[in-house]
Amino acid sequence: MSENKIGLTIKKSEDISKWYTELITKADLIEYTDVSGCIIYKPYIYEIWEMLKGELDKRFKKIGIKNAYFPLFIPEKFLNKEKDHVEGFAPEVAWVTHAGNSELNERLAVRPTSETIMYPYIAKWVRSWRDLPLKLNQWNNVVRWEFKNPVPLMRSREFLWNEGHTVYATKEEAEAERDKILGIYQEVLKDYMALYGISGYKSDREKFAGAVYTTSIEMFLESGKAIQGPDFHFDGQNFAKAFDITFLDEEGNRQYAYQNTFAFTTRMIGVMIMMHGDDKGLVLPPRVAPTQVVIIPIYKKENKEEVLEKAYELKELLKDFRVEIDERDSYSPGWKFNEHELKGIPIRIELGPRDIKESKAIVVRRDNIEKEAVSFNNLNQRIKEKLDSIHNHLYDRSKLIFESNVINAEKFEDVERAIKEKKMAFGAFCNRPECEESMKDKVEGLTTRCSPFDSDAHGKSCVHCGKPAKLMIYFARSY
Amino acid sequence: MSENKIGLTIKKSEDISKWYTELITKADLIEYTDVSGCIIYKPYIYEIWEMLKGELDKRFKKIGIKNAYFPLFIPEKFLNKEKDHVEGFAPEVAWVTHAGNSELNERLAVRPTSETIMYPYIAKWVRSWRDLPLKLNQWNNVVRWEFKNPVPLMRSREFLWNEGHTVYATKEEAEAERDKILGIYQEVLKDYMALYGISGYKSDREKFAGAVYTTSIEMFLESGKAIQGPDFHFDGQNFAKAFDITFLDEEGNRQYAYQNTFAFTTRMIGVMIMMHGDDKGLVLPPRVAPTQVVIIPIYKKENKEEVLEKAYELKELLKDFRVEIDERDSYSPGWKFNEHELKGIPIRIELGPRDIKESKAIVVRRDNIEKEAVSFNNLNQRIKEKLDSIHNHLYDRSKLIFESNVINAEKFEDVERAIKEKKMAFGAFCNRPECEESMKDKVEGLTTRCSPFDSDAHGKSCVHCGKPAKLMIYFARSY
Repeated sequence: MSENKIGLTIKKSEDISKWYTELITKADLIEYTDVSGCIIYKPYIYEIWEMLKGELDKRFKKIGIKNAYFPLFIPEKFLNKEKDHVEGFAPEVAWVTHAGNSELNERLAVRPTSETIMYPYIAKWVRSWRDLPLKLNQWNNVVRWEFKNPVPLMRSREFLWNEGHTVYATKEEAEAERDKILGIYQEVLKDYMALYGISGYKSDREKFAGAVYTTSIEMFLESGKAIQGPDFHFDGQNFAKAFDITFLDEEGNRQYAYQNTFAFTTRMIGVMIMMHGDDKGLVLPPRVAPTQVVIIPIYKKENKEEVLEKAYELKELLKDFRVEIDERDSYSPGWKFNEHELKGIPIRIELGPRDIKESKAIVVRRDNIEKEAVSFNNLNQRIKEKLDSIHNHLYDRSKLIFESNVINAEKFEDVERAIKEKKMAFGAFCNRPECEESMKDKVEGLTTRCSPFDSDAHGKSCVHCGKPAKLMIYFARSY
Repeated sequence: MSENKIGLTIKKSEDISKWYTELITKADLIEYTDVSGCIIYKPYIYEIWEMLKGELDKRFKKIGIKNAYFPLFIPEKFLNKEKDHVEGFAPEVAWVTHAGNSELNERLAVRPTSETIMYPYIAKWVRSWRDLPLKLNQWNNVVRWEFKNPVPLMRSREFLWNEGHTVYATKEEAEAERDKILGIYQEVLKDYMALYGISGYKSDREKFAGAVYTTSIEMFLESGKAIQGPDFHFDGQNFAKAFDITFLDEEGNRQYAYQNTFAFTTRMIGVMIMMHGDDKGLVLPPRVAPTQVVIIPIYKKENKEEVLEKAYELKELLKDFRVEIDERDSYSPGWKFNEHELKGIPIRIELGPRDIKESKAIVVRRDNIEKEAVSFNNLNQRIKEKLDSIHNHLYDRSKLIFESNVINAEKFEDVERAIKEKKMAFGAFCNRPECEESMKDKVEGLTTRCSPFDSDAHGKSCVHCGKPAKLMIYFARSY
């Protein structure tokens, strides 16, 4: 990479799409491939995914969810078993029709999600109330051949995710899982990715194909678009009836089971990049940054040894953090500053011979480029404080972007204005798919996002049709 | 599961294939699916895979290998780029031809291995000697539609693995990686899976499609069949030439890079099951056993509370180990003994009111069903010793099975006899594919396994053709 190509050429505020595309390739995160919509997750981004997986997995295991692995391929007859589900997914399915030189007897779907390959066997395993609850999760790859413009991470045809699938004896137990799972997702979004989102119900029109209802965490980007985060679906007995998942209860009666599914995908990394990045490049929240602190030794030939030695001493001093020393001779310190800013490393330490004489180093935050001379004695403590401060700053900013863009809608004109001004509207809604459809026809780009769990539409009328409102919901453009 | 169905009905010594099939389903490890050759990895076996992954991954990272993720799909034109490679894999490829209702312009291979989807991009990334070495790894799923009888884990059409792909500037550096990688694999096989194997070169006929040479770790099962373990391929410049992976060396000359690939698959779990299991079921090596110790409280109604309380005390005492208490009321202690033996839990502790009075518990080893009354004071120490002893016993047994089945072959009749008697022969070999082919024609089931790195064929003649020998090699039936 030559010196003049290191930085970004496009400003985030000017064209966020182009900025994003330039950023993810220049910051060494992803690579496009010849298979449209399928990208390479390079080590720098894959390491972030591994950290997120680790945090989520630990929390899933703590509440008794066990990992398993089900086949990639789904026989067509299985995919067809739940009517809404197949209607939702069939248009996006990649089909395997041949193996070697032979045509298969029955074509196989590459899993777009695994309900239909899991549930025929879960039906076999679940016999009595003693077998419940059954709480399974998979970490795998799925393929959805969407025909819109693919965007790396945000709209990928192949992506990585967790798919949780749980089975309960009663509706109450199944629904009680919702807050646990969304709580885990919110914790990782907030405490690791510094992302603010609102948990709530999707509208009936927007629910998952096959679910009774869908809940999700909705976020809002400064470009004026809302984006759906991780979700949790209560499937009721829909799949249990399609796949005959029944059990004998304690009284010996055969009952259909209740099911949930939930997912967290690599798309969240795309949201994180888009939320926190700036004109200089990536800004990584410290707790998921593969490198949290980069030390840049600044020296001439005659004091190289002394400076490098001190750099290694500082690395040892900062051993609670993920620290790298950039000792490449072929690049200037200025070039290195730019590169590490592009790659979003939360803190850089500049260390020269004069600093060493004065027992201090220059500490620079990535988020606001604030510099501070910190004495070696205080370094460990100040780095800890600064990493936390960066995290909080990013989270607060993401919360502010959400909250400062909400218009309380009393009438449909308020909703129209919000969409036009690239904001969100929050208003009462009847939750009828035909009403939502009609709003979408009137206002290009309008979507419903979610209805916060703590909101109350009692006594209100739908902002659009005037019928009694069922819930309060956010309206916005969708990413 | 009813009381009378818990145990195995087939003895390992009578029919190892049927025994294996009964075991893996009854011990709750896998489930067959409607897609032949594609199985469900149930939580009990997936947890073992997670532990193996964890141990391998830690060691890969320590030597600078980074994880990444490449697409599942490979455009046909890429697969065709390396002649030997495509010839080797094309007959087994699952092809995606349609997406939704549309036919694709170019069909896509579901990766049987990822060389051909990785190397076009690695060619882009590698420009100068500064970019080398490049050491990447993936943990993913691959599909090989083999038309032989699939056997779960052993011959699965979809399996899970690590695929390491490294790129070096020189042949010497590339080849120096061999011992590091095979060392990591041997360490995990020996120290975690209690499996003995011999590292060495595969014959030219048996090498990986596209490699200059293949090295592998070969194991031997008591059924009289050898089985290939993890492997490491030195690809030389074969793929570099096919995919144009070149770099400018320090003198500014353009050079082709040297490459290695290496893999460890879920098949190894199948080998572990087959090696250590017995007529009562699974025997898990303690360091990969999800549960290392199961405590079975034995009580009547009147002393239930006292016994359970002590069981929890012992669990706390044994907190360095993975301990479970089986407190299910609906099963008898005898039924539980059988179930935990079937599932291969290394140690069970039987704890009744009389034991508590005497401050001791009955400790039973899974491998040899040896019982010992151990006082609570010594329990922690004795459990540690017993787990190590079980591990060593299993490893030594697997080594003995290998070593006691080797016939030193001076003439081809010795090889023929070894194959007939379901043993291995070790003899001098010319390494000519046509000689190997001719041996295979003469002796049904004969395969070459590997040539140990420390063996020396200097001055010897091939046991079959009499031409000068290139190496000493093992001959055996193959699993």
